[in-house]
Amino acid sequence: MPPLNVVVAQSGGPTCVINNSLRGIIEGCRARPDAFGTVFAGRFGIEGVLKEELIDLSATPDQEISLLRTTPAAGSIGTCRYKLKPEQTDDFARVVEVFKAHRVGYFFYIGGNDSQDTAYKVSEIARQQGLDLVAVGVPKTIDNDLGDPEFTLLDHSPGYGSVARYMAQYVRQANEENAGSCPADPVLVVQAMGRKIGFIPAAARLADPGREMPLQIYLAEAGLTLERLGENVIKQLERDGRCIVVVSEGFDVGELGVVRDTFGHAQFSASQVTVAQVVVNYINSLKLPVPGKARGQVPGTDWRNAIAYASTVDLDEAYGVGRHAVEIALTDGNGFMATILRDRSRSSYNVSFDKVPLKLVAAKDREFPKAWLSSDGTDVTDEYVQYARPLIGEDWVSVPMVDGLVRFARINTKALAPRKLAPYVPQTYRK
Amino acid sequence: MPPLNVVVAQSGGPTCVINNSLRGIIEGCRARPDAFGTVFAGRFGIEGVLKEELIDLSATPDQEISLLRTTPAAGSIGTCRYKLKPEQTDDFARVVEVFKAHRVGYFFYIGGNDSQDTAYKVSEIARQQGLDLVAVGVPKTIDNDLGDPEFTLLDHSPGYGSVARYMAQYVRQANEENAGSCPADPVLVVQAMGRKIGFIPAAARLADPGREMPLQIYLAEAGLTLERLGENVIKQLERDGRCIVVVSEGFDVGELGVVRDTFGHAQFSASQVTVAQVVVNYINSLKLPVPGKARGQVPGTDWRNAIAYASTVDLDEAYGVGRHAVEIALTDGNGFMATILRDRSRSSYNVSFDKVPLKLVAAKDREFPKAWLSSDGTDVTDEYVQYARPLIGEDWVSVPMVDGLVRFARINTKALAPRKLAPYVPQTYRK
Repeated sequence: MPPLNVVVAQSGGPTCVINNSLRGIIEGCRARPDAFGTVFAGRFGIEGVLKEELIDLSATPDQEISLLRTTPAAGSIGTCRYKLKPEQTDDFARVVEVFKAHRVGYFFYIGGNDSQDTAYKVSEIARQQGLDLVAVGVPKTIDNDLGDPEFTLLDHSPGYGSVARYMAQYVRQANEENAGSCPADPVLVVQAMGRKIGFIPAAARLADPGREMPLQIYLAEAGLTLERLGENVIKQLERDGRCIVVVSEGFDVGELGVVRDTFGHAQFSASQVTVAQVVVNYINSLKLPVPGKARGQVPGTDWRNAIAYASTVDLDEAYGVGRHAVEIALTDGNGFMATILRDRSRSSYNVSFDKVPLKLVAAKDREFPKAWLSSDGTDVTDEYVQYARPLIGEDWVSVPMVDGLVRFARINTKALAPRKLAPYVPQTYRK
Repeated sequence: MPPLNVVVAQSGGPTCVINNSLRGIIEGCRARPDAFGTVFAGRFGIEGVLKEELIDLSATPDQEISLLRTTPAAGSIGTCRYKLKPEQTDDFARVVEVFKAHRVGYFFYIGGNDSQDTAYKVSEIARQQGLDLVAVGVPKTIDNDLGDPEFTLLDHSPGYGSVARYMAQYVRQANEENAGSCPADPVLVVQAMGRKIGFIPAAARLADPGREMPLQIYLAEAGLTLERLGENVIKQLERDGRCIVVVSEGFDVGELGVVRDTFGHAQFSASQVTVAQVVVNYINSLKLPVPGKARGQVPGTDWRNAIAYASTVDLDEAYGVGRHAVEIALTDGNGFMATILRDRSRSSYNVSFDKVPLKLVAAKDREFPKAWLSSDGTDVTDEYVQYARPLIGEDWVSVPMVDGLVRFARINTKALAPRKLAPYVPQTYRK
């Protein structure tokens, strides 16, 4: 009997380094042709499995797989936000059917807590039905909300180090801008990703660990109001003549953030305007102690695909945890997520790869430690800086260029495994 | 008699490379101690001259001046948006008074067309009053709106190549994001700077000169409506399942961009919402042929301070044109702007530094060539690509790092020339 085949897939929002975990899995499997058959990738995550759209990665040469190291986001094989809810029993049966049809014995799912939940459910079906199927999760999230609040199951997610490095360099540059342009633009508002959890805005502090910049950081968790934010900005302007405001997209702008017309009608809904814009509009409605106005910026998804800012530490760890997942599949079998643990007894940064039962991380949210919020709620503590500083690495990543442009990996996504089953409409998409 | 002193200043929005022109001027003057005395920098542009806030750059060591190469924006000496209008005769008299008081014989002003207008007016006063004062302009603008429409006075402004390179890499990354995430986020809207002129959004085409991406580019100059944009996006979604929209901040969203409440009142004003947001809201109000929603991003001022994206060609030219301005001051004297000209008879990229009378560029706007707009108004032509491609250079710039963070130059801005005059309130700031 030839060895069983492999399906790898990605889920959720991409990161700068997600393709490194993919690369780790592919290269790990290619290194063991005795143990693993064909490696397929689900086109757009679990959706590709449900639709039997399995990319045969054999058709992609080693050189392109190597280039995944510096290929951000998920353009290579695609990702999805498809959630397998417990009641979607058709979908689960379909996953099993597709895996059986293509002799899939290994399923690697790269993603956050929802994705780990999917991996967990697949692993449970394999166990309950006695299938020859090993499901292993691989962590990924820029939000760093995967794992437990004590960081014992997972110290940090691959993806976070790079977005933290982006934030650190971004704020450093924004500070040059703000310092030089403050006569016209004294307030610069930057909206940070991470609706529910504040690790991304917190990383602004890494730009200025010595607290020399007029920088205010608003995590949703601090629970401050827009009114308080306005007071803080005015104080900063009185002191420094300028101010950089980093605000989480999850910051509650509340009633004050709503602009009303003369009839008292709200002039826009929260879903039609960004938090940055509300904050900018609010600051500009105040009497500022300096000339000029506030302006805002919303990097949007650039956080998670700007490969120039990728952390080399993050890149290497994302690869390592992907390769480790292959080891887990071979050695430990079904039902685990690969993890990164830090030896906190050492002063130097020291991580190892380990595993945790999927059940312990599936659909569970980590929270930003309350103790890492400053007492006034506009900053994070040095303990956060000690935690996050090693994750951003030291130097720039070297990104291959061709004709002045970044050269990204090209996966042959047309090379699909021949279909063996009838077409299927995933349950969520049924009318 | 010791040689006369120098004042250098910056004006308008900063760029990634503006400090290289500053560096060129400082190093050019330092190389000729026989011809130039102390080099002062106006703190926040001409405002620093009016307020007699002159930074004595002698207090800043050569190493920091060298670091200006990779220090973006204008945090070093500051910039301003202060406009010297013809009727502000007090201000002009004050400039002369300050220059006389500090034995200033050379005035270098780095900036766009408004700044060249200021340089021109100062040069005219020097001429009319027979002052021993040489005013020389140094071009700078990310918009590339300085110079003539035929590119004979100035081929391109320092600053544009880097923002074009930012756009090219940005869209390449955004394409990975969009290709991988399209089941949830099929439309990505990116707002580009350049309110009146489309050179910045045009640079999106540099990301994909072969036209393989589902990319639509909306310059304000094309005069398309939001309704047409929506139709185009739907067509692209029908064809490719995804779409990247690059839209100028100057795109006229018109009446369709205004969301109305049940009383017919406009729900927000254009100044309270970004063009990107209006476009996103409008697309999301349409019936799209695919699942998922549009999302937008507004890089804001990041375009002009993200040093990682700086073009090495642009960096070198910004330096060269600064040094050339010093040569002009010595050789040609008062009333010129240093320029960059391209030898268009050659197939390879070949530039030289030259000069043009300030009068010809002062307060004059270049326009984006109409012939470079595609016939349907959603793209630019290959002629544009031929023009702009060399400006983005080939490889990444090497940015010095310390402790994982970019190390920017630190100008000693506390080292001010001792005041010799009574305090002065610039005319614009008078109550």
